[in-house]
Amino acid sequence: MKNIINDSFLLHNDIAYKLYHEHAANLPIIDYHNHLNPYEIYMDKSYANLTDVWLGGDHYKWRAMRAMGYSEELVTGISAYVTMESTSEVNAEKDFKRFLAYADTVQNSFGNPLYHWTHLELKRYFDIDEALDTESAEDIWNRCNELLGKQEYSTRNLLRMQNVKVLCTTDDPVDDLQWHQKLKEELPDISVRPSFRPGGVLDIEKSSFAEYILRLAQVTGTDINDLPELLQAVKMRLEFFIENGCRVSDHSLELDFYREADYGEVSKVFDKALSGENVSLDEAAMYRGYVLTELGKMYADNDIVMQLHIGAIRNNSTRMFDRLGADTGFDSINDFNYAPQLSALLNAMDRSDQLPKTILYYLNPKDTAMLMTMAGNYQGNSKGIRGKVQLGSAWWFNDHKTGMEQQLQALCDMGMLSNFVGMLTDSRSFLSFPRHEYFRRILCNMIGEKVEAGEYPADTDFLGQMVENICYYNAVKYFGLKI
Amino acid sequence: MKNIINDSFLLHNDIAYKLYHEHAANLPIIDYHNHLNPYEIYMDKSYANLTDVWLGGDHYKWRAMRAMGYSEELVTGISAYVTMESTSEVNAEKDFKRFLAYADTVQNSFGNPLYHWTHLELKRYFDIDEALDTESAEDIWNRCNELLGKQEYSTRNLLRMQNVKVLCTTDDPVDDLQWHQKLKEELPDISVRPSFRPGGVLDIEKSSFAEYILRLAQVTGTDINDLPELLQAVKMRLEFFIENGCRVSDHSLELDFYREADYGEVSKVFDKALSGENVSLDEAAMYRGYVLTELGKMYADNDIVMQLHIGAIRNNSTRMFDRLGADTGFDSINDFNYAPQLSALLNAMDRSDQLPKTILYYLNPKDTAMLMTMAGNYQGNSKGIRGKVQLGSAWWFNDHKTGMEQQLQALCDMGMLSNFVGMLTDSRSFLSFPRHEYFRRILCNMIGEKVEAGEYPADTDFLGQMVENICYYNAVKYFGLKI
Amino acid sequence: MKNIINDSFLLHNDIAYKLYHEHAANLPIIDYHNHLNPYEIYMDKSYANLTDVWLGGDHYKWRAMRAMGYSEELVTGISAYVTMESTSEVNAEKDFKRFLAYADTVQNSFGNPLYHWTHLELKRYFDIDEALDTESAEDIWNRCNELLGKQEYSTRNLLRMQNVKVLCTTDDPVDDLQWHQKLKEELPDISVRPSFRPGGVLDIEKSSFAEYILRLAQVTGTDINDLPELLQAVKMRLEFFIENGCRVSDHSLELDFYREADYGEVSKVFDKALSGENVSLDEAAMYRGYVLTELGKMYADNDIVMQLHIGAIRNNSTRMFDRLGADTGFDSINDFNYAPQLSALLNAMDRSDQLPKTILYYLNPKDTAMLMTMAGNYQGNSKGIRGKVQLGSAWWFNDHKTGMEQQLQALCDMGMLSNFVGMLTDSRSFLSFPRHEYFRRILCNMIGEKVEAGEYPADTDFLGQMVENICYYNAVKYFGLKI
Repeated sequence: MKNIINDSFLLHNDIAYKLYHEHAANLPIIDYHNHLNPYEIYMDKSYANLTDVWLGGDHYKWRAMRAMGYSEELVTGISAYVTMESTSEVNAEKDFKRFLAYADTVQNSFGNPLYHWTHLELKRYFDIDEALDTESAEDIWNRCNELLGKQEYSTRNLLRMQNVKVLCTTDDPVDDLQWHQKLKEELPDISVRPSFRPGGVLDIEKSSFAEYILRLAQVTGTDINDLPELLQAVKMRLEFFIENGCRVSDHSLELDFYREADYGEVSKVFDKALSGENVSLDEAAMYRGYVLTELGKMYADNDIVMQLHIGAIRNNSTRMFDRLGADTGFDSINDFNYAPQLSALLNAMDRSDQLPKTILYYLNPKDTAMLMTMAGNYQGNSKGIRGKVQLGSAWWFNDHKTGMEQQLQALCDMGMLSNFVGMLTDSRSFLSFPRHEYFRRILCNMIGEKVEAGEYPADTDFLGQMVENICYYNAVKYFGLKI
Repeated sequence: MKNIINDSFLLHNDIAYKLYHEHAANLPIIDYHNHLNPYEIYMDKSYANLTDVWLGGDHYKWRAMRAMGYSEELVTGISAYVTMESTSEVNAEKDFKRFLAYADTVQNSFGNPLYHWTHLELKRYFDIDEALDTESAEDIWNRCNELLGKQEYSTRNLLRMQNVKVLCTTDDPVDDLQWHQKLKEELPDISVRPSFRPGGVLDIEKSSFAEYILRLAQVTGTDINDLPELLQAVKMRLEFFIENGCRVSDHSLELDFYREADYGEVSKVFDKALSGENVSLDEAAMYRGYVLTELGKMYADNDIVMQLHIGAIRNNSTRMFDRLGADTGFDSINDFNYAPQLSALLNAMDRSDQLPKTILYYLNPKDTAMLMTMAGNYQGNSKGIRGKVQLGSAWWFNDHKTGMEQQLQALCDMGMLSNFVGMLTDSRSFLSFPRHEYFRRILCNMIGEKVEAGEYPADTDFLGQMVENICYYNAVKYFGLKI
Repeated sequence: MKNIINDSFLLHNDIAYKLYHEHAANLPIIDYHNHLNPYEIYMDKSYANLTDVWLGGDHYKWRAMRAMGYSEELVTGISAYVTMESTSEVNAEKDFKRFLAYADTVQNSFGNPLYHWTHLELKRYFDIDEALDTESAEDIWNRCNELLGKQEYSTRNLLRMQNVKVLCTTDDPVDDLQWHQKLKEELPDISVRPSFRPGGVLDIEKSSFAEYILRLAQVTGTDINDLPELLQAVKMRLEFFIENGCRVSDHSLELDFYREADYGEVSKVFDKALSGENVSLDEAAMYRGYVLTELGKMYADNDIVMQLHIGAIRNNSTRMFDRLGADTGFDSINDFNYAPQLSALLNAMDRSDQLPKTILYYLNPKDTAMLMTMAGNYQGNSKGIRGKVQLGSAWWFNDHKTGMEQQLQALCDMGMLSNFVGMLTDSRSFLSFPRHEYFRRILCNMIGEKVEAGEYPADTDFLGQMVENICYYNAVKYFGLKI
């Protein structure tokens, strides 16, 4: 059975084909948000086999395999009652069994993005022209593993194969960024930049909060006994990150994140938490709103982009969390409403004209129209920034053809598609970069379809430039990347 | 004017046509959730005329007729100030007037599923090739009524005409299941099974609660003075249902259904309600969460599927409720958010690995992505169950072409379509089974379109098997039906 | 580059083309909801240039220009630190710069309704066949401005050009309606009618409330010291509006609007507010629910249609509100859930069979299915009114092709498209009437596509009549317009 990947994949009209192949296909990749490990790039690691590279840490694939009824031993490789750490050793026979389970899952994943991604990856990295199914699995296993054994398939070379130029990883403010620093020297052709993700600073309701603040104090060589000292320490780390190439911050908002409160009230909440007392969710929201506002102003002052990822609900299975820990495929989409809070938060920064460039990501598609129009409230500026506040790429569970099309359509309907900074992988996998191709094809197809339907003139010069902007140049400008 | 029903109805490409006609069309029907009355099957009732069979109890049709501005006398046949009971007598002239009103409604229901269902029913049961409109109404009335008068159109024969093999009705735990028992003996070719719907046990905020518990005690010959005794009685009824063929339970969740609470707190709430005191909605949620969790564990222990139907708001017109009672077309879609509650409920069962197979139905389409990804948190198991927790079929107000396509697309985008247990009617009408054909055509068309668009190989053997699984075999396995 | 507007614009099949050109294109326009200023119609004002007519007050365009990064000076023409009032003087050079910024914005608004509207307006009013872009801008500027200088382009003549027959403006109950009265005498060919929008009566939480009630007392020559006196005064104004041609009322519900309360409780809240005390949001909801219910009954008694616009969140940027005031493009979509409140409100009127004809508008598309089915709870009536309670046209941020298609599809899926009263502009611009053409084309195309797909017979007589009803006759009947 033939692999679905060919030149026309997802391109259903001539304009789409032309736009993709003449304007999108050959542009380098700026992946401004992902969860790759800079250490693994530095080590230039290679992979033992397809199971190692595909099933080593990708919760998208794990969830699909679990839905097929496969046991955890085949999914993550973890036997019941055995913790994750003890399984680092490669076991070829077991790995092949796991790969067969994955092949069966792929064959059964009709219409799922995994089907498309898997075959894009097989074609682009391994030049495989067959569809992966239970019959072809062994042959594909052997051919891919042979290639994976070569130096050309190290992490750095996998990035090069897909023409990745900029990578923004996700990093904690207390991180020393040593691998970023070393990579800057050693890897001139790929710019690996840290992103500032101060979740530890904001999640005051967590039991680890006081300890985290202590660590932040240690890293900055300061005392943190009150809010101004906290903000001072955070600012020092932000400046350190910026010195090391940081252009963007990231925040996952999962609980209430803004309650009107004055400095005195917030101060008391902070003191309470520092002294190890529990804070209520309302108190946490007061604190979080206050600190987010101050962070936002710092970002504005330093031209750092603020990303707000809103609406995950995590670790829903206590049983599996106890066994496998976080980020193992037991998170999903929450459904809380948050327009008034978000308005108050953005307004708090905007009041003094210190709202940074901001990207708003929805996880629950019900929030699309709300976010899209909320973004529209904070545009216009003396610096001529296009799309200063904008809707983020179709994120996580929305990262499929339908989700991308809906996000692009929302950009058209209620905003300016042409200002969009485009795709990111948000991925933990070194093989995930063909998702940029996936996005680019979907983008070009949508544009082509509207032109063919007579909704925009067939001005391929203008549209070609627009495609190039969305796939590359908008991000260069918006994130202030010097390339 | 010609009826729209022909071999290609809803099948817009060759693959779709092939999949439907070679794989879906001839499979028997498993209708694992409906509201048919087993007594009416036992009595093998016949219908006086089209008005009797179509407008006797179908609130879908009533709502459409009311939207056309028709008075209640033509809709349900109830005159103002006359209660429902007094209208059992057939009145041919009045019935024909009501049918004309329905014909006018159908003609005006452009794009509504009623238009499609009505014409499927006219074609499949009565071989009518004309479209129903105000002109054709009288001729269709006469032809259909002549057929309805024959023994071949009794309830049992109507089921046989559509090749119905399994019916799961909806039954109260206190029901004696006498008609199911008799049907088991008398009707070997159609398996009519009870479903366990313990709404009376869970809806502690209702004024009828204490009385219901008393009835449950009587039926089980036990005393129910505390929670353990309640659960023991419920367990006895569940076992009785299972002995009588029950494979599935059903719960309509309309108010808050989970608040963390310990046994002592829940116990107090139960005592309060038993002694006739009012309980608050928060107290009800504590109780409901606790009892639902214990019920879920019973289902898991007995391999009974748990259905959760979430989000109806009922009896919105007090004026019409007073006149016509419940389930007469005055219910609609609520919009409360419930992801954290649902997570807590499922987790409470999953903690001890006692989460049963679970089907989550949304009524408000805004909940689709949330539910779809919530289901993904509780997969994987030692028994190899595929799609252990899954999104239910497009339910009630979503039971139309758009709704089905959206539900199927969600299954593709965020899960595994191939594991889906497929269609149910949820119906109160003996003529509603062509809705399975409607679903099957829409399913095959969606698959065909994706194949034609190059998103999956044209592997019609594999896809044909997938279609057969979704239409029939998945349900056989999932519900553990011995056929 | 050619303008996209031609006879086939948005019409993608023969049935659609036929339905539009034979049944929809030539019907007059009933615009039953807009924000045009009756004084400007009375004065028969002309416009200085395209910037004056397009960018004088249209926040849709302003938002798009701001998203392009343009400064406020080019968007609204307001320099920083200069208030709006000081800019009335026309400045041709600056206006041309603003027009160039708008032309750039339009060219970049791929897929946005502004692109479609702008070119429809250029074609229909100015017979421009070129696409507006930065190259064509100067030529188009000159040609249009020449035409705008002529008497044929006065406000009244702009309305005539689009065959506008009925206009319902939006008016405050304290308005003296002098311009409506004068227009009735002077402008026989266009019926300019007031709409009753008693926001000032309902928004008890606003600081201006007591003052507003005082004004209402003055206008009616009454004392308002308690609720009955308030309702009496409101009733007097409603009757005055009806005498002056009012057929419809309008309410924007943005905060909680129904909390169960008895007369005594509501009375206390009203007294509190009259004496200048703050009322809580819960108290406001009690009051609002009570007064809305009484208003609804008045509408029912007088056969006035009640419009409920639900879900805006306004003035999100305090900084820009301080600079530009309200309705300047800083409002967006809220996300609160309100099904139980809405059910209680409608039920409160329906209990005594005094629910008026009601149109429910969603702003957040997540509410579509909820509203659509809520409407279905209150149909059926002794007067044979079709679609008594119905879903409103795709409103504000949903007023684009996708939004209209979704709204029409919802009417099909869960209701009766054929009862729909059709399009309104909700606009503040005299050039916005080609949006009716936009709607009509989208409507005809949707119908044509379903017919071509075999979902309804090609009964173009019936469908042509249905199209005419939706575009014109349904509104005539529903609003009780004597034309």
